[in-house]
Amino acid sequence: MTRTPEDLLISTQHALRRVRVDAPLVQCITNNVVVNFTANALLALGAAPAMVDIPEEAGAFAGIAGGVLINLGTPAEEQRHAMLEAAHAASSAGTPWVLDPVAVGALSVRTPLSHRLRDLRPTIIRGNASEIIAVAGVGAGGRGVDATDHVDAALEAATSLASTTGAVVAVSGPVDVVTDGSSIVRIANGDALLTRVTGGGCALGAVMAAFAAVDDDRFASTVAAVTVYTVAAELAAERATGPGTFAVAFLDALSAVDEADIAARAAIS
Amino acid sequence: MTRTPEDLLISTQHALRRVRVDAPLVQCITNNVVVNFTANALLALGAAPAMVDIPEEAGAFAGIAGGVLINLGTPAEEQRHAMLEAAHAASSAGTPWVLDPVAVGALSVRTPLSHRLRDLRPTIIRGNASEIIAVAGVGAGGRGVDATDHVDAALEAATSLASTTGAVVAVSGPVDVVTDGSSIVRIANGDALLTRVTGGGCALGAVMAAFAAVDDDRFASTVAAVTVYTVAAELAAERATGPGTFAVAFLDALSAVDEADIAARAAIS
Amino acid sequence: MTRTPEDLLISTQHALRRVRVDAPLVQCITNNVVVNFTANALLALGAAPAMVDIPEEAGAFAGIAGGVLINLGTPAEEQRHAMLEAAHAASSAGTPWVLDPVAVGALSVRTPLSHRLRDLRPTIIRGNASEIIAVAGVGAGGRGVDATDHVDAALEAATSLASTTGAVVAVSGPVDVVTDGSSIVRIANGDALLTRVTGGGCALGAVMAAFAAVDDDRFASTVAAVTVYTVAAELAAERATGPGTFAVAFLDALSAVDEADIAARAAIS
Repeated sequence: MTRTPEDLLISTQHALRRVRVDAPLVQCITNNVVVNFTANALLALGAAPAMVDIPEEAGAFAGIAGGVLINLGTPAEEQRHAMLEAAHAASSAGTPWVLDPVAVGALSVRTPLSHRLRDLRPTIIRGNASEIIAVAGVGAGGRGVDATDHVDAALEAATSLASTTGAVVAVSGPVDVVTDGSSIVRIANGDALLTRVTGGGCALGAVMAAFAAVDDDRFASTVAAVTVYTVAAELAAERATGPGTFAVAFLDALSAVDEADIAARAAIS
Repeated sequence: MTRTPEDLLISTQHALRRVRVDAPLVQCITNNVVVNFTANALLALGAAPAMVDIPEEAGAFAGIAGGVLINLGTPAEEQRHAMLEAAHAASSAGTPWVLDPVAVGALSVRTPLSHRLRDLRPTIIRGNASEIIAVAGVGAGGRGVDATDHVDAALEAATSLASTTGAVVAVSGPVDVVTDGSSIVRIANGDALLTRVTGGGCALGAVMAAFAAVDDDRFASTVAAVTVYTVAAELAAERATGPGTFAVAFLDALSAVDEADIAARAAIS
Repeated sequence: MTRTPEDLLISTQHALRRVRVDAPLVQCITNNVVVNFTANALLALGAAPAMVDIPEEAGAFAGIAGGVLINLGTPAEEQRHAMLEAAHAASSAGTPWVLDPVAVGALSVRTPLSHRLRDLRPTIIRGNASEIIAVAGVGAGGRGVDATDHVDAALEAATSLASTTGAVVAVSGPVDVVTDGSSIVRIANGDALLTRVTGGGCALGAVMAAFAAVDDDRFASTVAAVTVYTVAAELAAERATGPGTFAVAFLDALSAVDEADIAARAAIS
C-alpha cells in the first residue's frame, strides 16, 4: 500500500483525535531517568500511562494494555526479566509494542538483550542512527544516547531491520525517518531543544505505543506519533527561553496541539 | 469526638503552620515515576524529604522519621523488603505512616503486598476509589492508576477499612473523602489538572505523612493535608496554561499557600 | 601552587568554555530521586550525560567516560556493585570521578560503602558539612540530606580528608568551600532556593565531573563547577516565584550562563 503525504496527514489527525478520545492504556518499562517525563508526556497527550515494570505483573499487564514500551536505558536485572516477560506476552496477545534500544552497541548487557527483544517481534523499533545500526547488528553503536552516525547512514540498516523483523522502524534525527522496509517517510519537524532535555527521544517511544494502540496501521500510526510529537516541540520552542522552560512548554503543547496545528506545520514527505 | 468544619479549618491552618516551623522529616518509599515530584512537593511545603528505601536502612530510619510514606507504584523486590521492614519499624516506634496502594486490585504482586501492609496497621490509607475497594478486599480494583469506581461507591469500603484497621482512610476524587470509620469529611477543592500530572495523587500521600508528623490527631491532620494540597492546586491552576506549567506552578503554590488562602478557599463539609 | 582569586576566575571562564565545546561524556551512578534533574542539568550546561549504572556496563563505561559521578542517595544492591566497579575502573583508567556521600553517617548500608569508595581514591568528594565529617570518619553525620553541622565546623574534616585521600573536597553550604588539603577557597554565590529543590546539591556533583573532564587541574575545575553552578542559581532566582519556577529557570540559566556573568558575579575568595 502506497500512502501519499496527504494520506498520512489525514491519518495523523485522525489518530490524534482517537488518542484523546480513547485514552489508551500504555505500559512503559523504561529507564529511571525519563520515567517521570514519559508518564507526563502521555498524560499531557491524553493517554493513560502505567509504569508496570516488575516480573509477574509486567507480563500480565502487557496482555491488557493498549500498547507497551520497552526502553533499555537503565536495564537493571529485575527489569530485564520484566522486559522479556512483557515482550512475550505482548506478542502473544497481539498488543503492539515498541522497542527503544537506548545506547546499544558497545555496552555488554543491553546489546545482547536488544537482540533478544528484536527477535521477539516488536511492532515498532525506535532509536537514533547509531542505535538502529547496532540493533540491526551491522555497526558498533554510539557513545551513550548521542547519535554518532548520521540518520541517512542508518537508512540501509533501518530498511533491512524492518524487512527482517516485520517491525516499523523509526530513526530519530534532525529529520526523522519511518520505514516498514518498503515505504520510507521523512518528517522534518521538531526543534533542537528536544535534544537538550533528557527523555526527548525516550518519551516519543511511549507516544508511538499510544498511537499504535488506537490505529491498526502501524506505519501510519508511527508517522502520526512522530509528527504530533515534533510539531508539539515546535510550538513549545516558540515559548521557551532555554531547555528548562522548553520541557515545561512541551508538556503544555502535547496537551494543546490540535488538528489545525498538524495541518499547518506537518512536514511529511 | 465530633469536629465541625470550622474546627477542621482551624486545625488545618494550625497544622500548616507547624509543618513550616517543624520541617518534619518524611521518609518516602515510593515509586520511581513520582519520587522526584514527591520530594519537591515536600520541600516546597517546608518539610524535609528522605527517600530511604533500601533494606536495613529503611527500618532504622522509620524509627527516627517524623512520618513515613509507603507507596506501591513500582514495587521492585528489594523495595518490597524495605517496605515491610519500614512498616514494622514505624508501627513499633509509633511513627505515623501512610499506605498508598497504587494500582492494587488485579496486579498479582502488589495486591497481596497491600494486604500484608494493611494488616501492619498503617496510620493512614490513601487511594482512589478502585484502590480503596481493592485494599479493603471487596472489589476487583482498577486499570492502573485510574479510578474506575466512583468515590461514593468506595465510601462503604473506606468506612469498613477504617473500622477494621484503625486507619484514617482518604479517597481521592473530584471531591475527596476522609473517614475514620465513624466521621466522614468531604473536601471539595482541587483542580482537574492535578490528574494530568503524574504523582498528583502520590505526592499527596507524602504530604499526609508530613502533616501526621506534626499533629497527633490523624483525622484532622489528614483533612489538613488534603485541604492544603488541593487549595494549592487551585492557586496553581490559575497560573497554568497546561499540565506542564501547572506542575511547576503547583510547587510554587505549595510553598506560598498560607492560612488566608485556606480560609478563603477551603470547602470542607 | 598558589592560585589567586583572579587566577581562579580566569580558569573558571576557560573551563566553562571547554565544557560547551567538548561536551564531555559524564557517567552518573546516582539516586533515583534526582537522576532526571541531574541529566537535565548536564544537558543544559552542554555536557553529555550517560546514566550507565548496572554491573558489567558501569565499569566498562567508566573507562571511556570523561568523568564519573557516584552518588549514594538511594544505593540499592545492584547499584552498589556498579558503584564499586565504576570506582575501580575509573581509578585504573585515570578517569576523574566524584564521590557524593549523600546522607552518610548513621545509615548502616551507605556509611561503610562511602568509606570503601573513599579508599578507592576519588578525584573529588562533595557533600554538606555533616556528610564530609561522616566520610572523614570523625562525626556522626546528619539527618538525611540536611546539613546539621555548620560548614566551618566541617573545615577541619575536609582538610584532613583531602590530605589523607588526595581528593579535592568541596563542602556545600551558604558559602561553599573547596580544599585540596592545603589551599582553601570560598565561593559565596548561590541562592537559598537551591536548597528547596531536590537534587540541588546532587546535580552539582555531576557538574563537577563534567568540569574535571575538561580541566586536569581538579582544584581549579572544582572551583569552576561550584562557581558556574551557583552563579546560574543567582540568575535563576531573579526569575523565580518559588521552588517550581526556580528549578525550571535554573536549567535555562545553566544553558545561558556565560563568561560575562561569571566575571560580574563570581565571589571567590
